[in-house]
Amino acid sequence: MKTYINPNPKEWGDLSQRKTLALTDLSETVKGIFSDVQKNGDKAVSKYTHIFDGVTITDFSVSNEEMQNATTLVSEDLKNAIQEAAKNIKQFHTSQKEIATKVETTSGVYCWRENRAIETIGIYIPGGTAPLFSTVLMLAIPAQIAGCQNIILCSPPNKKGEIDSAILYAAQLTGVTSIYKIGGIQAIAALTFGTETVPKVSKLFGPGNQYVTAAKQYAQQQGIAIDMPAGPSELLVIADDTCDADFVASDLLSQAEHGEDSQVILVANSIEIIEKVKIAIGVQKAKLPRIAIIEKALENSRALVLNSIDEAIKFSNYYAPEHLILAIDDAENKLVKIENAGSVFIGNYSCESAGDYASGTNHTLPTNGFAKNYSGVSLDSFVKKITFQKITATGIQNLGKTIEIMAAAEQLEAHKNAVSIRLKKIQNGQY
Amino acid sequence: MKTYINPNPKEWGDLSQRKTLALTDLSETVKGIFSDVQKNGDKAVSKYTHIFDGVTITDFSVSNEEMQNATTLVSEDLKNAIQEAAKNIKQFHTSQKEIATKVETTSGVYCWRENRAIETIGIYIPGGTAPLFSTVLMLAIPAQIAGCQNIILCSPPNKKGEIDSAILYAAQLTGVTSIYKIGGIQAIAALTFGTETVPKVSKLFGPGNQYVTAAKQYAQQQGIAIDMPAGPSELLVIADDTCDADFVASDLLSQAEHGEDSQVILVANSIEIIEKVKIAIGVQKAKLPRIAIIEKALENSRALVLNSIDEAIKFSNYYAPEHLILAIDDAENKLVKIENAGSVFIGNYSCESAGDYASGTNHTLPTNGFAKNYSGVSLDSFVKKITFQKITATGIQNLGKTIEIMAAAEQLEAHKNAVSIRLKKIQNGQY
Repeated sequence: MKTYINPNPKEWGDLSQRKTLALTDLSETVKGIFSDVQKNGDKAVSKYTHIFDGVTITDFSVSNEEMQNATTLVSEDLKNAIQEAAKNIKQFHTSQKEIATKVETTSGVYCWRENRAIETIGIYIPGGTAPLFSTVLMLAIPAQIAGCQNIILCSPPNKKGEIDSAILYAAQLTGVTSIYKIGGIQAIAALTFGTETVPKVSKLFGPGNQYVTAAKQYAQQQGIAIDMPAGPSELLVIADDTCDADFVASDLLSQAEHGEDSQVILVANSIEIIEKVKIAIGVQKAKLPRIAIIEKALENSRALVLNSIDEAIKFSNYYAPEHLILAIDDAENKLVKIENAGSVFIGNYSCESAGDYASGTNHTLPTNGFAKNYSGVSLDSFVKKITFQKITATGIQNLGKTIEIMAAAEQLEAHKNAVSIRLKKIQNGQY
Repeated sequence: MKTYINPNPKEWGDLSQRKTLALTDLSETVKGIFSDVQKNGDKAVSKYTHIFDGVTITDFSVSNEEMQNATTLVSEDLKNAIQEAAKNIKQFHTSQKEIATKVETTSGVYCWRENRAIETIGIYIPGGTAPLFSTVLMLAIPAQIAGCQNIILCSPPNKKGEIDSAILYAAQLTGVTSIYKIGGIQAIAALTFGTETVPKVSKLFGPGNQYVTAAKQYAQQQGIAIDMPAGPSELLVIADDTCDADFVASDLLSQAEHGEDSQVILVANSIEIIEKVKIAIGVQKAKLPRIAIIEKALENSRALVLNSIDEAIKFSNYYAPEHLILAIDDAENKLVKIENAGSVFIGNYSCESAGDYASGTNHTLPTNGFAKNYSGVSLDSFVKKITFQKITATGIQNLGKTIEIMAAAEQLEAHKNAVSIRLKKIQNGQY
């Protein structure tokens, strides 16, 4: 974690570089598997599950028995914790519901919007050593609040052909309607086209490795909406001398343990703060099991001394971090200056892991600078907003001339005629 | 316009097919121009403008003098009409502003969202015979309300090296900050990478031909957000015997004149309605200048008789039309059943052209069935929603154990440690 003291703003571009993995071009692999799954359905899915997951599965659906077993296998402590987190996530996402307000833009012209759930959505949960049940909560809970009718979850089976109990428990708690033991490119392909077993979805959510990421991009080209473009996770902390160096170190480390390509950026208004945090990092990381990953991630990471907190915020807006912690005095009065960030954590007690798990905010957030042009997942991600308009006879009489003039100027006479024919019948007293 | 009487629901898939143009694979062309513009900036843009628009341009920026001239060249009638439409669009999109509501999910844990404008956005306005100034209103007005700092407009120059006056007038009325005489793939490339003259944008909006569509797709792969995937325009009308056949015909024709690939679908609960509308179409179309386009579009179009209005709505939800007109009795009580549509027009006086120009709703809408998973453009399209959280010492004490248990179960010990270290210092009375 190299330190930069008052870098010239011209260097901000370089200092904002994320580690870009030398991605293999997977487009041919993805295309091949998609085409096979589109043509051969379950049979193809089965074949790739055998190849990539090393397990033969005849029925991809998770059975009722497996669901019941999962409930007994998860400890009471973890069940209670998941329920507590689910309650908070539900409360925050429910508060995002909007009430349609009807606007009368011209006398007799009423316009409004209403939300409708996306009928069928897909959630991808990666496999691996640690079961990411928290992501199930973050995606299925808002889908359920939105009213999505079909919430389809795919996750790769382990060598025994099973999905982790905590994932299954979280899924049944949050209204997931079907769960399939399918992972990787073949899962995204199955959700894109549908198979004999797996329904076709309209939108895909969830994290994944480079194969899943490439598959989601390809699915998007096939007309399936996706949550957002993917990238490695990241955290930027702005700290002044009111921060607690141990807390800041613990937050940087919690981000760094995500993966070798994670990035953490510490921006402070004095070198002393950075030195204290670096010492605390050294002490804390020694006790952490994922120290090898952490040390790799710290190699991509940077500490910056800038002249003022205002300049630090400017840099943060330029960087556009996924997670931003403000460990500074009077943080709440600085919020108006935050332009680009996925999720912001205010003050010494708002650690990133609270938002990752249980405070109620979503943890599916824009990475890689996408906080400049994308929002994190929210209730909005699971609905479409339809506009409605009701125009009365008075309304079309008030607005008609305007439409006629504009349509004529765009040389769209049939557009004009649709108004003229109505005005004429009204004038003739036919209505 | 072929008529289908009570088609089997199994045929709904075929009846929902849009005309897919045999798209040339433009990916190599797009890649080549993007790479040239990225490397050679304005010089490359100039080269392609010469090749594709047949005009040599030394300064792409529209000058102040050109802007002033535009104002004098647009007729007073058109200026008034544009102002009236702008007022309505502004009013409706302003009503979409949200107020941040802070939620206390657990005692001492506060979560909320705030909107921030996307700083720099690009608007593409196609050239051609008719100046699409209405699209300027639909994109620049919400961008201005959102607070986008840089609203960049590109539109191809005509043979004289000029942009139509009505476009320039609409742009200055709606706070567009820079206008460049650049069209096609080179415009999208310039907005994607930035050049000496054109700023790089974070999000791209606006319609275009297949070249622009392919370029926007490629820009999206480069990390630029886009408004929505493109497709030909379409209208579905549901009519019962309370409809006015002349009005329905005029609406179908107004949609059909957009382009040869446009599609109109009429769904009624009796054959008599369809016959009446077809007669009215015959009478009206003869007087329309774009009759050749209309007749081509009608070849891709269909009339369906279904058993009931409820079934017609089911078909409409299946088709997911960009525009939906409900020319039926008691339409307002049917709205809850509308699941998939871009914009809905209620009753005999709500013609589509009202929404295209002046009622206040946006006319940039999801086509090609994308109403199942995408919303039309709205104020939301120009902002990111950032989540904020403030956790107090009490808050982390209330929530800490839950986070610790979940982090441990996901084998993320550093996540757990970020909480433990805080709880420990609080317990030790250090805070």
